[in-house]
Amino acid sequence: MNSDNVAVITRMVIEALDKKEAFKEQDFYVPVGVSARHVHLTQEHLEKLFGKGYQLTKKKELMGGQYAANEVVTIVGLKLRAIENVRILGPVRKGSQVEVSKTDAVKLGVPAPIRESGDTKGSAPIALVGPKGVVYLNEGCIIAKRHIHMAPADAMAAGVTDNQEVSVVADNERGTTFNHVQVRVDESFTLEMHIDTDEANAASIRTGDKLRIVK
Amino acid sequence: MNSDNVAVITRMVIEALDKKEAFKEQDFYVPVGVSARHVHLTQEHLEKLFGKGYQLTKKKELMGGQYAANEVVTIVGLKLRAIENVRILGPVRKGSQVEVSKTDAVKLGVPAPIRESGDTKGSAPIALVGPKGVVYLNEGCIIAKRHIHMAPADAMAAGVTDNQEVSVVADNERGTTFNHVQVRVDESFTLEMHIDTDEANAASIRTGDKLRIVK
Repeated sequence: MNSDNVAVITRMVIEALDKKEAFKEQDFYVPVGVSARHVHLTQEHLEKLFGKGYQLTKKKELMGGQYAANEVVTIVGLKLRAIENVRILGPVRKGSQVEVSKTDAVKLGVPAPIRESGDTKGSAPIALVGPKGVVYLNEGCIIAKRHIHMAPADAMAAGVTDNQEVSVVADNERGTTFNHVQVRVDESFTLEMHIDTDEANAASIRTGDKLRIVK
Repeated sequence: MNSDNVAVITRMVIEALDKKEAFKEQDFYVPVGVSARHVHLTQEHLEKLFGKGYQLTKKKELMGGQYAANEVVTIVGLKLRAIENVRILGPVRKGSQVEVSKTDAVKLGVPAPIRESGDTKGSAPIALVGPKGVVYLNEGCIIAKRHIHMAPADAMAAGVTDNQEVSVVADNERGTTFNHVQVRVDESFTLEMHIDTDEANAASIRTGDKLRIVK
Protein backbone atom coordinates (compact mmCIF):
# COMPACT_ATOMS: atom_id res chain seq x y z
CA MET A 1 0.00 0.00 0.00
CA ASN A 2 1.50 3.38 -0.88
CA SER A 3 1.87 6.16 1.67
CA ASP A 4 -1.06 8.16 0.21
CA ASN A 5 -3.41 5.26 0.87
CA VAL A 6 -2.04 4.81 4.37
CA ALA A 7 -2.75 8.49 5.04
CA VAL A 8 -6.29 8.22 3.68
CA ILE A 9 -7.09 5.13 5.74
CA THR A 10 -5.51 6.65 8.86
CA ARG A 11 -7.70 9.73 8.47
CA MET A 12 -10.81 7.58 7.99
CA VAL A 13 -10.05 5.62 11.15
CA ILE A 14 -9.49 8.82 13.16
CA GLU A 15 -12.74 10.29 11.85
CA ALA A 16 -14.63 7.12 12.72
CA LEU A 17 -13.23 7.18 16.25
CA ASP A 18 -14.10 10.88 16.62
CA LYS A 19 -17.64 10.17 15.49
CA LYS A 20 -17.96 7.33 17.99
CA GLU A 21 -16.67 9.60 20.74
CA ALA A 22 -19.10 12.34 19.74
CA PHE A 23 -21.97 9.88 19.79
CA LYS A 24 -20.95 8.73 23.24
CA GLU A 25 -21.04 12.33 24.47
CA GLN A 26 -24.57 12.60 23.14
CA ASP A 27 -25.95 9.67 25.13
CA PHE A 28 -29.59 10.40 25.87
CA TYR A 29 -30.97 9.57 29.29
CA VAL A 30 -34.63 9.13 30.26
CA PRO A 31 -35.99 9.29 33.81
CA VAL A 32 -38.14 6.32 34.82
CA GLY A 33 -41.63 6.34 36.28
CA VAL A 34 -42.58 3.00 37.83
CA SER A 35 -46.28 2.24 37.45
CA ALA A 36 -47.90 0.18 40.18
CA ARG A 37 -51.08 -1.73 39.36
CA HIS A 38 -54.01 0.63 38.78
CA VAL A 39 -57.47 1.03 37.30
CA HIS A 40 -59.01 3.47 34.82
CA LEU A 41 -62.81 3.75 34.90
CA THR A 42 -65.65 5.17 32.86
CA GLN A 43 -68.03 7.48 34.74
CA GLU A 44 -70.69 4.76 34.41
CA HIS A 45 -68.48 2.13 36.05
CA LEU A 46 -67.34 4.60 38.72
CA GLU A 47 -70.98 5.16 39.68
CA LYS A 48 -71.69 1.41 39.75
CA LEU A 49 -68.79 0.95 42.17
CA PHE A 50 -69.16 4.09 44.32
CA GLY A 51 -72.77 5.20 43.90
CA LYS A 52 -74.85 7.43 41.65
CA GLY A 53 -73.32 10.78 40.74
CA TYR A 54 -70.00 9.90 42.41
CA GLN A 55 -66.93 12.00 41.50
CA LEU A 56 -63.30 10.90 41.93
CA THR A 57 -61.27 12.91 44.45
CA LYS A 58 -57.65 13.85 43.85
CA LYS A 59 -54.87 12.39 45.99
CA LYS A 60 -51.79 13.23 43.89
CA GLU A 61 -51.14 14.92 40.55
CA LEU A 62 -49.45 12.78 37.88
CA MET A 63 -48.13 13.52 34.37
CA GLY A 64 -50.32 14.82 31.56
CA GLY A 65 -53.32 15.95 33.62
CA GLN A 66 -53.82 12.55 35.25
CA TYR A 67 -54.04 12.02 38.99
CA ALA A 68 -54.04 9.23 41.55
CA ALA A 69 -57.47 9.24 43.17
CA ASN A 70 -58.16 8.62 46.84
CA GLU A 71 -60.53 5.85 45.75
CA VAL A 72 -59.41 2.22 45.52
CA VAL A 73 -61.12 -1.03 44.49
CA THR A 74 -60.55 -4.74 44.97
CA ILE A 75 -59.89 -6.69 41.76
CA VAL A 76 -60.79 -10.37 41.48
CA GLY A 77 -59.58 -12.78 38.79
CA LEU A 78 -60.96 -15.93 37.20
CA LYS A 79 -59.80 -18.15 40.06
CA LEU A 80 -61.55 -15.90 42.61
CA ARG A 81 -58.23 -14.66 43.93
CA ALA A 82 -58.24 -11.00 44.90
CA ILE A 83 -55.88 -8.04 45.14
CA GLU A 84 -57.11 -5.31 47.48
CA ASN A 85 -56.56 -1.54 47.48
CA VAL A 86 -55.92 -1.07 43.77
CA ARG A 87 -55.65 2.66 43.07
CA ILE A 88 -57.96 4.37 40.57
CA LEU A 89 -56.35 6.93 38.25
CA GLY A 90 -58.43 9.90 37.21
CA PRO A 91 -59.97 11.54 35.34
CA VAL A 92 -62.58 9.05 34.10
CA ARG A 93 -62.04 7.68 30.58
CA LYS A 94 -64.06 6.34 27.66
CA GLY A 95 -63.12 2.76 28.52
CA SER A 96 -62.44 0.97 31.78
CA GLN A 97 -59.10 -0.81 32.04
CA VAL A 98 -57.08 -2.64 34.70
CA GLU A 99 -53.27 -2.55 34.43
CA VAL A 100 -51.40 -5.20 36.40
CA SER A 101 -47.92 -6.69 36.44
CA LYS A 102 -47.25 -10.25 35.25
CA THR A 103 -46.78 -11.21 38.91
CA ASP A 104 -50.27 -9.87 39.65
CA ALA A 105 -51.69 -11.68 36.61
CA VAL A 106 -50.23 -14.98 37.82
CA LYS A 107 -51.61 -14.36 41.31
CA LEU A 108 -55.05 -13.47 39.95
CA GLY A 109 -54.99 -16.32 37.46
CA VAL A 110 -55.84 -14.08 34.50
CA PRO A 111 -54.22 -14.40 31.04
CA ALA A 112 -53.51 -10.66 30.72
CA PRO A 113 -51.72 -9.81 27.46
CA ILE A 114 -48.95 -7.19 27.11
CA ARG A 115 -50.68 -4.21 25.49
CA GLU A 116 -50.50 -0.48 24.99
CA SER A 117 -52.90 1.48 27.17
CA GLY A 118 -56.35 1.61 25.57
CA ASP A 119 -55.79 -1.50 23.43
CA THR A 120 -58.00 -3.83 25.48
CA LYS A 121 -59.79 -5.76 22.71
CA GLY A 122 -59.66 -9.47 23.54
CA SER A 123 -57.71 -8.86 26.77
CA ALA A 124 -58.42 -10.69 30.02
CA PRO A 125 -61.69 -10.55 31.99
CA ILE A 126 -61.65 -9.24 35.55
CA ALA A 127 -64.09 -8.24 38.29
CA LEU A 128 -63.94 -4.95 40.21
CA VAL A 129 -65.49 -4.55 43.64
CA GLY A 130 -66.24 -1.15 45.16
CA PRO A 131 -68.09 -0.04 48.31
CA LYS A 132 -71.43 0.31 46.49
CA GLY A 133 -71.32 -2.32 43.79
CA VAL A 134 -69.43 -4.52 41.38
CA VAL A 135 -68.41 -4.39 37.70
CA TYR A 136 -67.45 -7.38 35.58
CA LEU A 137 -65.25 -6.54 32.61
CA ASN A 138 -65.37 -9.20 29.89
CA GLU A 139 -62.13 -7.71 28.67
CA GLY A 140 -59.92 -4.93 30.04
CA CYS A 141 -57.13 -6.47 32.10
CA ILE A 142 -53.70 -5.91 30.51
CA ILE A 143 -50.02 -5.82 31.36
CA ALA A 144 -48.84 -2.40 30.17
CA LYS A 145 -46.27 -2.47 27.35
CA ARG A 146 -43.30 -0.36 28.38
CA HIS A 147 -42.85 2.90 26.51
CA ILE A 148 -41.22 6.32 26.60
CA HIS A 149 -43.19 9.57 26.56
CA MET A 150 -41.36 12.53 25.08
CA ALA A 151 -42.01 15.97 23.64
CA PRO A 152 -40.84 16.70 20.04
CA ALA A 153 -37.78 18.60 21.31
CA ASP A 154 -36.68 15.57 23.35
CA ALA A 155 -37.22 13.30 20.34
CA MET A 156 -34.99 15.57 18.27
CA ALA A 157 -32.29 15.59 20.94
CA ALA A 158 -32.45 11.80 21.26
CA GLY A 159 -32.54 11.32 17.49
CA VAL A 160 -35.71 9.24 17.55
CA THR A 161 -39.19 9.52 16.05
CA ASP A 162 -42.74 8.72 17.14
CA ASN A 163 -43.46 4.97 17.30
CA GLN A 164 -39.80 4.02 16.86
CA GLU A 165 -38.63 1.07 18.93
CA VAL A 166 -35.44 1.58 20.92
CA SER A 167 -33.48 -0.31 23.54
CA VAL A 168 -32.91 1.23 26.95
CA VAL A 169 -30.05 0.30 29.27
CA ALA A 170 -29.95 0.38 33.07
CA ASP A 171 -26.21 0.60 33.84
CA ASN A 172 -26.57 -0.54 37.44
CA GLU A 173 -25.58 -3.54 39.57
CA ARG A 174 -27.96 -5.96 37.88
CA GLY A 175 -27.47 -4.44 34.44
CA THR A 176 -30.50 -4.84 32.20
CA THR A 177 -31.34 -3.78 28.66
CA PHE A 178 -35.02 -3.39 27.78
CA ASN A 179 -35.52 -4.02 24.06
CA HIS A 180 -38.65 -3.23 21.98
CA VAL A 181 -39.35 -0.02 23.92
CA GLN A 182 -41.80 2.14 22.01
CA VAL A 183 -41.23 5.88 21.75
CA ARG A 184 -44.35 8.05 21.87
CA VAL A 185 -43.92 11.68 20.91
CA ASP A 186 -46.50 14.35 21.71
CA GLU A 187 -46.40 18.05 22.62
CA SER A 188 -48.23 17.28 25.88
CA PHE A 189 -45.76 14.61 27.06
CA THR A 190 -43.19 15.00 29.83
CA LEU A 191 -40.03 12.97 29.24
CA GLU A 192 -40.48 9.70 31.13
CA MET A 193 -40.15 5.96 30.56
CA HIS A 194 -42.97 3.92 32.05
CA ILE A 195 -42.23 0.43 33.32
CA ASP A 196 -44.19 -1.77 35.72
CA THR A 197 -43.19 -3.02 39.16
CA ASP A 198 -41.93 -6.38 37.82
CA GLU A 199 -39.59 -4.64 35.43
CA ALA A 200 -38.42 -2.19 38.11
CA ASN A 201 -37.81 -4.92 40.68
CA ALA A 202 -36.12 -7.30 38.25
CA ALA A 203 -33.73 -4.55 37.14
CA SER A 204 -33.25 -2.76 40.52
CA ILE A 205 -34.73 0.47 39.21
CA ARG A 206 -36.68 3.14 41.11
CA THR A 207 -38.77 6.04 39.92
CA GLY A 208 -36.39 8.85 38.99
CA ASP A 209 -33.50 6.62 37.91
CA LYS A 210 -32.14 7.58 34.51
CA LEU A 211 -31.77 4.99 31.74
CA ARG A 212 -29.75 5.33 28.54
CA ILE A 213 -31.33 5.01 25.10
CA VAL A 214 -29.49 2.89 22.54
CA LYS A 215 -30.64 2.44 18.95
CA MET B 1 -5.57 3.09 -4.69
CA ASN B 2 -4.11 0.48 -7.07
CA SER B 3 -5.95 -2.70 -8.00
CA ASP B 4 -3.76 -4.87 -5.74
CA ASN B 5 -4.83 -2.87 -2.71
CA VAL B 6 -8.45 -3.03 -3.78
CA ALA B 7 -8.15 -6.83 -4.01
CA VAL B 8 -6.52 -7.04 -0.57
CA ILE B 9 -9.18 -4.86 1.07
CA THR B 10 -11.98 -6.72 -0.70
CA ARG B 11 -10.64 -10.02 0.62
CA MET B 12 -10.36 -8.61 4.14
CA VAL B 13 -13.96 -7.41 4.05
CA ILE B 14 -15.21 -10.77 2.76
CA GLU B 15 -13.27 -12.59 5.47
CA ALA B 16 -14.67 -10.30 8.13
CA LEU B 17 -18.22 -10.90 6.92
CA ASP B 18 -17.63 -14.67 6.79
CA LYS B 19 -16.36 -14.59 10.33
CA LYS B 20 -19.41 -12.65 11.48
CA GLU B 21 -21.70 -15.10 9.69
CA ALA B 22 -19.87 -18.05 11.23
CA PHE B 23 -20.23 -16.49 14.67
CA LYS B 24 -23.93 -15.99 14.09
CA GLU B 25 -24.34 -19.65 13.18
CA GLN B 26 -22.66 -20.56 16.44
CA ASP B 27 -25.13 -18.66 18.64
CA PHE B 28 -25.20 -20.43 21.97
CA TYR B 29 -28.51 -20.91 23.75
CA VAL B 30 -29.05 -21.65 27.43
CA PRO B 31 -32.24 -23.11 28.95
CA VAL B 32 -33.64 -21.15 31.88
CA GLY B 33 -34.58 -22.40 35.32
CA VAL B 34 -36.75 -19.93 37.23
CA SER B 35 -36.06 -20.04 40.98
CA ALA B 36 -38.97 -19.24 43.26
CA ARG B 37 -38.24 -18.04 46.79
CA HIS B 38 -36.70 -20.81 48.91
CA VAL B 39 -34.74 -21.62 52.04
CA HIS B 40 -31.54 -23.60 52.67
CA LEU B 41 -31.06 -24.82 56.25
CA THR B 42 -28.35 -26.28 58.45
CA GLN B 43 -29.29 -29.53 60.22
CA GLU B 44 -29.27 -27.55 63.49
CA HIS B 45 -31.79 -25.00 62.21
CA LEU B 46 -33.90 -27.74 60.60
CA GLU B 47 -34.20 -29.42 63.99
CA LYS B 48 -35.09 -26.12 65.72
CA LEU B 49 -37.92 -25.64 63.23
CA PHE B 50 -39.16 -29.23 62.84
CA GLY B 51 -38.01 -31.05 65.98
CA LYS B 52 -35.01 -33.01 67.25
CA GLY B 53 -33.52 -35.51 64.78
CA TYR B 54 -35.79 -34.32 61.96
CA GLN B 55 -34.81 -35.27 58.40
CA LEU B 56 -35.99 -33.48 55.25
CA THR B 57 -38.19 -35.54 52.91
CA LYS B 58 -37.86 -35.34 49.12
CA LYS B 59 -40.66 -33.89 47.01
CA LYS B 60 -38.86 -33.35 43.68
CA GLU B 61 -35.31 -33.86 42.38
CA LEU B 62 -33.50 -30.73 41.17
CA MET B 63 -30.12 -30.15 39.47
CA GLY B 64 -26.81 -31.16 41.04
CA GLY B 65 -28.12 -33.50 43.73
CA GLN B 66 -30.43 -30.90 45.25
CA TYR B 67 -34.13 -31.45 45.84
CA ALA B 68 -37.27 -29.55 46.77
CA ALA B 69 -38.36 -30.85 50.17
CA ASN B 70 -41.94 -31.41 51.24
CA GLU B 71 -41.26 -29.13 54.20
CA VAL B 72 -42.07 -25.41 54.10
CA VAL B 73 -41.65 -22.54 56.56
CA THR B 74 -43.09 -19.06 57.05
CA ILE B 75 -40.57 -16.22 56.74
CA VAL B 76 -41.07 -12.94 58.59
CA GLY B 77 -39.24 -9.67 57.91
CA LEU B 78 -38.30 -6.66 59.98
CA LYS B 79 -41.74 -5.06 59.66
CA LEU B 80 -43.41 -8.29 60.89
CA ARG B 81 -44.81 -8.97 57.45
CA ALA B 82 -44.86 -12.65 56.54
CA ILE B 83 -44.68 -14.89 53.47
CA GLU B 84 -46.10 -18.38 54.06
CA ASN B 85 -45.26 -21.74 52.52
CA VAL B 86 -41.66 -21.01 51.53
CA ARG B 87 -40.12 -24.24 50.19
CA ILE B 88 -37.00 -25.72 51.79
CA LEU B 89 -34.36 -27.08 49.39
CA GLY B 90 -32.34 -30.08 50.53
CA PRO B 91 -29.94 -31.48 51.44
CA VAL B 92 -29.01 -29.47 54.55
CA ARG B 93 -26.04 -27.11 54.16
CA LYS B 94 -23.28 -25.57 56.26
CA GLY B 95 -25.10 -22.24 56.41
CA SER B 96 -28.78 -21.28 56.45
CA GLN B 97 -29.91 -18.87 53.75
CA VAL B 98 -33.17 -17.40 52.48
CA GLU B 99 -33.39 -16.47 48.78
CA VAL B 100 -36.18 -14.09 47.84
CA SER B 101 -37.05 -11.84 44.90
CA LYS B 102 -36.88 -8.05 45.16
CA THR B 103 -40.69 -8.01 45.20
CA ASP B 104 -40.60 -10.32 48.24
CA ALA B 105 -37.92 -8.17 49.90
CA VAL B 106 -40.09 -5.07 49.47
CA LYS B 107 -43.12 -6.91 50.86
CA LEU B 108 -41.13 -8.23 53.82
CA GLY B 109 -39.43 -4.87 54.39
CA VAL B 110 -35.93 -6.38 54.40
CA PRO B 111 -32.91 -4.77 52.71
CA ALA B 112 -31.78 -7.98 50.98
CA PRO B 113 -28.68 -7.46 48.81
CA ILE B 114 -28.07 -9.11 45.43
CA ARG B 115 -25.57 -11.88 46.17
CA GLU B 116 -24.20 -15.18 44.95
CA SER B 117 -25.51 -18.18 46.86
CA GLY B 118 -23.46 -18.71 50.04
CA ASP B 119 -22.24 -15.09 50.21
CA THR B 120 -24.47 -14.02 53.09
CA LYS B 121 -22.04 -11.91 55.15
CA GLY B 122 -23.77 -8.66 56.09
CA SER B 123 -26.96 -9.63 54.27
CA ALA B 124 -30.46 -8.97 55.65
CA PRO B 125 -31.87 -10.43 58.90
CA ILE B 126 -34.97 -12.62 58.71
CA ALA B 127 -37.04 -14.87 60.97
CA LEU B 128 -38.11 -18.42 60.06
CA VAL B 129 -41.09 -20.10 61.66
CA GLY B 130 -41.63 -23.86 61.56
CA PRO B 131 -44.13 -26.21 63.22
CA LYS B 132 -41.86 -26.87 66.20
CA GLY B 133 -39.91 -23.66 66.67
CA VAL B 134 -38.39 -20.48 65.28
CA VAL B 135 -34.97 -19.37 64.03
CA TYR B 136 -33.79 -15.77 63.78
CA LEU B 137 -31.02 -15.20 61.25
CA ASN B 138 -29.04 -12.02 61.92
CA GLU B 139 -27.94 -12.29 58.30
CA GLY B 140 -28.85 -14.70 55.52
CA CYS B 141 -31.61 -13.13 53.42
CA ILE B 142 -30.41 -12.40 49.87
CA ILE B 143 -31.68 -11.80 46.36
CA ALA B 144 -29.86 -14.38 44.22
CA LYS B 145 -27.52 -12.93 41.58
CA ARG B 146 -28.38 -14.44 38.23
CA HIS B 147 -25.86 -16.87 36.77
CA ILE B 148 -25.34 -19.67 34.28
CA HIS B 149 -24.23 -23.16 35.29
CA MET B 150 -22.34 -25.08 32.64
CA ALA B 151 -20.02 -28.05 32.23
CA PRO B 152 -16.56 -27.47 30.67
CA ALA B 153 -17.73 -28.84 27.28
CA ASP B 154 -20.57 -26.29 27.19
CA ALA B 155 -18.16 -23.51 28.12
CA MET B 156 -15.93 -24.49 25.24
CA ALA B 157 -18.85 -24.59 22.81
CA ALA B 158 -20.05 -21.18 24.02
CA GLY B 159 -16.53 -19.73 23.99
CA VAL B 160 -16.68 -18.60 27.62
CA THR B 161 -14.69 -19.30 30.77
CA ASP B 162 -15.46 -19.73 34.47
CA ASN B 163 -16.42 -16.45 36.18
CA GLN B 164 -16.73 -14.56 32.89
CA GLU B 165 -19.61 -12.08 32.72
CA VAL B 166 -21.82 -12.31 29.64
CA SER B 167 -25.07 -10.77 28.46
CA VAL B 168 -28.03 -12.99 27.73
CA VAL B 169 -30.87 -12.06 25.38
CA ALA B 170 -34.51 -13.14 25.52
CA ASP B 171 -35.71 -12.63 21.93
CA ASN B 172 -39.40 -12.65 22.81
CA GLU B 173 -42.31 -10.19 22.82
CA ARG B 174 -40.96 -8.05 25.65
CA GLY B 175 -37.35 -8.41 24.54
CA THR B 176 -34.89 -8.17 27.41
CA THR B 177 -31.11 -8.41 27.69
CA PHE B 178 -29.67 -9.44 31.06
CA ASN B 179 -26.18 -7.97 31.45
CA HIS B 180 -23.58 -8.90 34.10
CA VAL B 181 -24.54 -12.59 34.05
CA GLN B 182 -21.87 -14.68 35.68
CA VAL B 183 -20.79 -17.96 34.10
CA ARG B 184 -19.95 -20.78 36.52
CA VAL B 185 -18.18 -23.79 35.04
CA ASP B 186 -17.96 -27.12 36.85
CA GLU B 187 -17.94 -30.79 35.80
CA SER B 188 -21.02 -31.39 37.98
CA PHE B 189 -23.13 -28.63 36.42
CA THR B 190 -26.04 -29.10 34.05
CA LEU B 191 -26.41 -26.29 31.52
CA GLU B 192 -28.95 -23.86 32.96
CA MET B 193 -29.38 -20.15 33.62
CA HIS B 194 -30.92 -19.33 36.97
CA ILE B 195 -33.10 -16.25 37.31
CA ASP B 196 -35.66 -15.32 39.93
CA THR B 197 -39.40 -14.84 39.56
CA ASP B 198 -39.11 -11.05 39.16
CA GLU B 199 -36.70 -11.45 36.27
CA ALA B 200 -38.84 -14.17 34.68
CA ASN B 201 -42.06 -12.17 35.01
CA ALA B 202 -40.52 -8.90 33.86
CA ALA B 203 -39.11 -10.57 30.76
CA SER B 204 -41.99 -13.01 30.04
CA ILE B 205 -39.74 -16.04 30.49
CA ARG B 206 -40.66 -19.51 31.76
CA THR B 207 -38.53 -22.42 32.89
CA GLY B 208 -37.27 -24.21 29.78
CA ASP B 209 -37.17 -21.12 27.55
CA LYS B 210 -33.85 -20.76 25.76
CA LEU B 211 -31.87 -17.52 25.92
CA ARG B 212 -28.99 -16.46 23.67
CA ILE B 213 -25.55 -15.62 25.05
CA VAL B 214 -23.85 -12.50 23.69
CA LYS B 215 -20.38 -11.41 24.70
